[in-house]
Amino acid sequence: MAQIVRLDDLDDPRLRDYTDLRDVQLRLRLESERGLFLAEGEKVVRRAVESGHRPRSFLMSPRWLEGLADVLDTTDAPCFVLDDASIERLTGFHVHRGSLAALERPDLPTPREVLDAARRVVIIEDLVDHTNVGAIFRSVAALGFDAVLLSPRCADPLYRRAIKVSMGSVFWLPYARVDDWYGAPQLLRDAGYTTYAMTLADDSVPLDEVPRDVERLALVVGSEGHGLTPHWEQQADHRVTIPMAADIDSLNVASSVAVACWELRPR
Amino acid sequence: MAQIVRLDDLDDPRLRDYTDLRDVQLRLRLESERGLFLAEGEKVVRRAVESGHRPRSFLMSPRWLEGLADVLDTTDAPCFVLDDASIERLTGFHVHRGSLAALERPDLPTPREVLDAARRVVIIEDLVDHTNVGAIFRSVAALGFDAVLLSPRCADPLYRRAIKVSMGSVFWLPYARVDDWYGAPQLLRDAGYTTYAMTLADDSVPLDEVPRDVERLALVVGSEGHGLTPHWEQQADHRVTIPMAADIDSLNVASSVAVACWELRPR
Repeated sequence: MAQIVRLDDLDDPRLRDYTDLRDVQLRLRLESERGLFLAEGEKVVRRAVESGHRPRSFLMSPRWLEGLADVLDTTDAPCFVLDDASIERLTGFHVHRGSLAALERPDLPTPREVLDAARRVVIIEDLVDHTNVGAIFRSVAALGFDAVLLSPRCADPLYRRAIKVSMGSVFWLPYARVDDWYGAPQLLRDAGYTTYAMTLADDSVPLDEVPRDVERLALVVGSEGHGLTPHWEQQADHRVTIPMAADIDSLNVASSVAVACWELRPR
Repeated sequence: MAQIVRLDDLDDPRLRDYTDLRDVQLRLRLESERGLFLAEGEKVVRRAVESGHRPRSFLMSPRWLEGLADVLDTTDAPCFVLDDASIERLTGFHVHRGSLAALERPDLPTPREVLDAARRVVIIEDLVDHTNVGAIFRSVAALGFDAVLLSPRCADPLYRRAIKVSMGSVFWLPYARVDDWYGAPQLLRDAGYTTYAMTLADDSVPLDEVPRDVERLALVVGSEGHGLTPHWEQQADHRVTIPMAADIDSLNVASSVAVACWELRPR
């Protein structure tokens, strides 16, 4: 079981995985360099460990020790204990439900591995908002799609905010990053997928006219501001639009994906 | 046309509608007491005025005067001009695209008036997040629903963040607040609506089994944390659930409403 380590020196080098939580850019660099990610709050910490991610350490105030005892029992990683005020000073913000874990960032499968094991995937291009990425994972998982592929510039699904919004689905839903983004349309074709790009293009089919019997289907969505790049818009097998009432030309990207996953769900 | 007033004294009483923009609670009280709301950014200011809301004043830096000249032409309200740094000092934050307008808060119709003029409505109970309220207005408007009713504790659709996320649909989509929330189920019945409460209750019908020929349909959704109150859950004519894959028990509330509005859209 985890070794309980009570600390009072915030400069203790063992705490360095938990500093500067308020600075998104700094954290993203630090977490990527050190190969870790953070889980925040009792429920998320539990889900992270139970879904097979390896904890490097835990950090919590004393009152969370009991609630997470069964989780701590399953690992040899140290559990650092500080009072709530010290945790807040260390991390730079009010930690939700006083518990954190630093976990090893998992090795992702290759895009082709993800595609071969799936039938319904969502491909997201250059979505920079962690809330949107998390919400899309949640919808994909809830509505029976199988996996997500990310462009190189997409926000990190294992960033704290994305994890939380995803309800922890980033821990178990298969996903991969596509390094060769330009080659992504061909990659999808080679894996036997029919690709549907969500756009407002003139030659789009309305969402409810997409055939129900597509064997392997990939839904491709673009960034918050500009939508899909012309490359993807042109290279996709089909373009698809959610028909809109007057005066509004689109849903937000997370709502669009939810609607499209619902309409195209396996059935 | 609007009178252009160049100011340099941030204590000028004519600027008092624009102070303390960072403090959500203070702003909400202040805007409600003074009967105003704020529009932020060239596009939103334009939409607010063009949708018929009466401006009390404008506040912008010099470079926005030209782009909004046609809007300023339509009104006698004063336009206060400050440099960007002063606007930031006054309001307490970086104003998106350097322009603001303070507008008269409109008199809302009664719930019954809204219901009589509609066929498809969304009823939201105690949603406290302005982003969620804005996203729901956007989905409702985009997917062909007609109106929204709000419980007394719902977040304000005319708060800055909600306006922005709604893409301005709060300016023209009919909505009302229901003061007598306990009586709301009866109000809906009296107006000829069949009510569908979105819940995870055991006796829920799956969303795709809701009949398509409901004459007047109201979709009722509850708060982010706890869902609908028992009163509404029991008083609704039907309970409806979006069928979920394993391991996730719900979508976020804005995505749920988007999916349900799509499935139940007029057709």
